[in-house]
Amino acid sequence: MNIAVFGTGMVARAIGPALASQGHSVIYGTRNPADTLTRTAPGPFGGPPFSEWHKTQPDALLGTFADAAEHAALIVNATSGSGSLPALEQAGQHRLDGKILIDIANPLDFSNGFPPSLSVCNTDSLAERIQRAYPGLKVVKALNTLTAALMVNPAALSGDHVIFMSGNDAAAKVQVASLLQQAFGWKAHNIIDLGDVSTARGTEMLLPLWVRLYASLQTPMFNFSLVRQSEAS
Amino acid sequence: MNIAVFGTGMVARAIGPALASQGHSVIYGTRNPADTLTRTAPGPFGGPPFSEWHKTQPDALLGTFADAAEHAALIVNATSGSGSLPALEQAGQHRLDGKILIDIANPLDFSNGFPPSLSVCNTDSLAERIQRAYPGLKVVKALNTLTAALMVNPAALSGDHVIFMSGNDAAAKVQVASLLQQAFGWKAHNIIDLGDVSTARGTEMLLPLWVRLYASLQTPMFNFSLVRQSEAS
Repeated sequence: MNIAVFGTGMVARAIGPALASQGHSVIYGTRNPADTLTRTAPGPFGGPPFSEWHKTQPDALLGTFADAAEHAALIVNATSGSGSLPALEQAGQHRLDGKILIDIANPLDFSNGFPPSLSVCNTDSLAERIQRAYPGLKVVKALNTLTAALMVNPAALSGDHVIFMSGNDAAAKVQVASLLQQAFGWKAHNIIDLGDVSTARGTEMLLPLWVRLYASLQTPMFNFSLVRQSEAS
Repeated sequence: MNIAVFGTGMVARAIGPALASQGHSVIYGTRNPADTLTRTAPGPFGGPPFSEWHKTQPDALLGTFADAAEHAALIVNATSGSGSLPALEQAGQHRLDGKILIDIANPLDFSNGFPPSLSVCNTDSLAERIQRAYPGLKVVKALNTLTAALMVNPAALSGDHVIFMSGNDAAAKVQVASLLQQAFGWKAHNIIDLGDVSTARGTEMLLPLWVRLYASLQTPMFNFSLVRQSEAS
């Protein structure tokens, strides 16, 4: 499938290659591709600049958000929370209509340092804002509750651990769940459909706990699992 | 130990008897004991009125919040989120100073129905509000992320699952962790100390996910466990 990955940071660099390794054609979307390729500052979390990283991904295309959306049947939103709506605006509504958007972004606000707060929460969510702004887009919130390396490699942790899906379009959620299983190895029973897109409030609001656990455990390589009574002895 | 349980609802009715069964002397605090005992409407979630339930707890004392705080070396806040600060105000600062408060309450706002939103979150929390209002109280947020029946009986779910603690007073957290282990059977490694009282933002903000999982799983008898890389094969 032709897939657009919006963003060039840590999440995009995990999602894109994992999709490419399964035979998908991936194009990364960015605001200004020339700028992205000439930037020499270190990438996120001390990683290489995108231009260097890009050389390790010979088949990866880079374009504007519009280029990427044009190319794609499915879009992955791996931008920052504050960059998500601007990216979609640059992509253009007519290039989004009818397509699935897997929304991984969280509306983290680092303006007061670490731990971040959320720029939207409680009675609204980033996923809902995106869905309201682009009614023709099939927004499926997913993968936003764990670190990038685990999104694409759940087997890095032993045993069951879970991710959540929120979205208004049932068929889109089925398709996303199938992709997560086939491309990344998520087990069907560990993908929990919470309901409509407003349930993304719940998973975006998990981030304030996640960042504190990250600080407490001193590693991002953890995830939640659900223990239910039916499993009780 | 003499323990005050503020509240007469589902959480209080789980916590109190579990503490009493371990030999603690429990007094329930309520706004107006006479009113509480004459009320005939069903209790929370279709349970009996407090007066009927109270007959099944022959040693349980009932008093005002001030009576209960006076009696107690440790207080459990099992009121509703909106009732917490009024209850503490009625208890009176001089009856609270120097004592530990295990704060189980969540600032749930049901004014728009189910699922509830939070009346405080993101850049503040109920636990912080309580701590700011009563600097002499040693607030330890705990047990607010799972259903009442599991708070006092973690063994009802098989395997490891976790609870969190937030508070500024390290010695108070040690004492609370010890009580949770001895009275309810929580294992030490499943009690996660997140840090100071501001980390309660994380656990209170877990509720919007919790209520949606409750709706999705059709049971409150579930909890989260943490899967960490060190456990990976």
